[in-house]
Amino acid sequence: MPDDMMTIALDAMGGDHGVSVVVPAALQALREMSALRLILVGDQQVMADELKRHGATPDDRLILHHASQVVEMDDLPSQALRGKKDSSMRVAINQVKEGNAQACISAGNTGALMATARFVLKTLPGIDRPAIITALPTIRGHAHMLDLGANVDSSSEHLYQFAIMGSVLTSLVDGVDNPSVGLLNVGEEEIKGNEQVKGAAKLLSRSDINYKGFVEGDDIYKGTVDVVVCDGFIGNVSLKTSEGVAKMISHYMKQAFNRNLLTRLAGLVVLPVLKAFRAKIDPRAYNGASLVGLRGIVIKSHGGADVFAFSQAIREAVLEVNKNVPEKITQRLGELLEERRAV
Amino acid sequence: MPDDMMTIALDAMGGDHGVSVVVPAALQALREMSALRLILVGDQQVMADELKRHGATPDDRLILHHASQVVEMDDLPSQALRGKKDSSMRVAINQVKEGNAQACISAGNTGALMATARFVLKTLPGIDRPAIITALPTIRGHAHMLDLGANVDSSSEHLYQFAIMGSVLTSLVDGVDNPSVGLLNVGEEEIKGNEQVKGAAKLLSRSDINYKGFVEGDDIYKGTVDVVVCDGFIGNVSLKTSEGVAKMISHYMKQAFNRNLLTRLAGLVVLPVLKAFRAKIDPRAYNGASLVGLRGIVIKSHGGADVFAFSQAIREAVLEVNKNVPEKITQRLGELLEERRAV
Repeated sequence: MPDDMMTIALDAMGGDHGVSVVVPAALQALREMSALRLILVGDQQVMADELKRHGATPDDRLILHHASQVVEMDDLPSQALRGKKDSSMRVAINQVKEGNAQACISAGNTGALMATARFVLKTLPGIDRPAIITALPTIRGHAHMLDLGANVDSSSEHLYQFAIMGSVLTSLVDGVDNPSVGLLNVGEEEIKGNEQVKGAAKLLSRSDINYKGFVEGDDIYKGTVDVVVCDGFIGNVSLKTSEGVAKMISHYMKQAFNRNLLTRLAGLVVLPVLKAFRAKIDPRAYNGASLVGLRGIVIKSHGGADVFAFSQAIREAVLEVNKNVPEKITQRLGELLEERRAV
Repeated sequence: MPDDMMTIALDAMGGDHGVSVVVPAALQALREMSALRLILVGDQQVMADELKRHGATPDDRLILHHASQVVEMDDLPSQALRGKKDSSMRVAINQVKEGNAQACISAGNTGALMATARFVLKTLPGIDRPAIITALPTIRGHAHMLDLGANVDSSSEHLYQFAIMGSVLTSLVDGVDNPSVGLLNVGEEEIKGNEQVKGAAKLLSRSDINYKGFVEGDDIYKGTVDVVVCDGFIGNVSLKTSEGVAKMISHYMKQAFNRNLLTRLAGLVVLPVLKAFRAKIDPRAYNGASLVGLRGIVIKSHGGADVFAFSQAIREAVLEVNKNVPEKITQRLGELLEERRAV
């Protein structure tokens, strides 16, 4: 086996579709990337059956690793942590801990994934809390946003750490030098917002992070900054609200086109246009949120991800392994600490 | 003058367009509602000139009231409060305080409007903080949401008070008996969220408010509940995020239809369909956020409101005066207090 092979562990049982999505996405990724090796973690029989369905068998690039339990979508993080030590999710994370894989991916229960990953892998030195970060489409291309729900009641220091992690990850995966960072707030004026946000603004202003000040909710999709930083409660509500608005718009658009035969015909005429439009904001293309701040790379795929979307999550994992994201975050934290000491 | 006349004071200088929107909207409202009297507050000359432009003159249903100052969009609330005691905004609110008007409307600076209204009118007994509430389109019709930015760091008790105010207002303006109320949270499970939300959930569960539990960001536009309750920081971010998503979608849709001659022709074919669709989620139809919890009715129009949108804000004010919203909130608070004592 050549040295430059990369290994990624996949929780084969997680998400709404389990093996029926993870296995074909894995096979596709292996075809596309010759230096990739995948460890599928889950029920041995279920995985083998699904592989057979696709005319495939395990080999030295596609390893099956049995796990006897599955974390359900409604399991509490504490239940998963204490009661499901042999879950496909936990065993996939263990692969990273034990050095058998450089990253792992799960489409399972977010709370359980975060709790388990944090327990097994621990946070990076200097990071109090891991955060969830993802790319989002904007009018100008895309932006990264964090935290998306790992933490509520984030302090100024936490927001500052999120900003550093977001800046490093964005710089690496997008190849942007010192990406611009904004703090999500209720207004752009310095006096607005809560104490946590105001304190974080002070910390960021003093650092050499490319801090652009406060941004508002509509700035996320305008692409005003490369990295949007917020508390996890706010980030989660904001992201879910976005999904809600997009679904409502799509609902009313379908309704308008389905009104009568004439409007349905009109819909057929513009189908390619609507498809081109949808591709621009296709959430599947942005699938793969990263749990940053851990001593290892953990990617969360959307629970409802299809094969295309799950493949995107694999690509995200490959990119982060190649760019060595956790080590670069530690390095940057060290620099900023030096800088703070020097002030 | 008959006894059943209703008087509303309008800040004629507020918002992006000032008199050029407020005056024609006022004239339209007076044509539509014969029992309505309006007091236009602002620069006497500017208002008179604008009236002349529309071939109108002041009369006993359209009264001009001079105010020498204007609150600018970037004035701090404290500046407006201390330095602009003769602003059109302040004088319009004074009309409510002095009993000359039953409600007032301004399209000006939200922070200044809230601070001034609170200072001049005071909060209702039992209400610690006023909140901003508006109707939003949903897949099932519409819902009300509060707080949209008046307060950051709301306590459990504040959220509980918002829920009561939202429930009363929605019940009155929508004619719904005991509307369903949801608390905006990061997940539906009881253990999720921050302490404020968990505490508010307890208070609401014990009350006879029709409390449905936690809702998530996407529930707002699904119309899961009639009233969505949240802290103002979260509500503001959520609302602005929604605007951002809608604008991005519209941007990419225009781009798709403008790609070439063929797609432009296709766009013309479906123009009536797209118009019908847009009417369903037209934010102008939902213009007019209420500052609830004050001893008087104050309506905030969107700063960029056009004549159609500003007229909606006038209709909202008329409805709230007819339904006697502030008094009904006080009454409901009294009932709930009785109920708490009885437990």
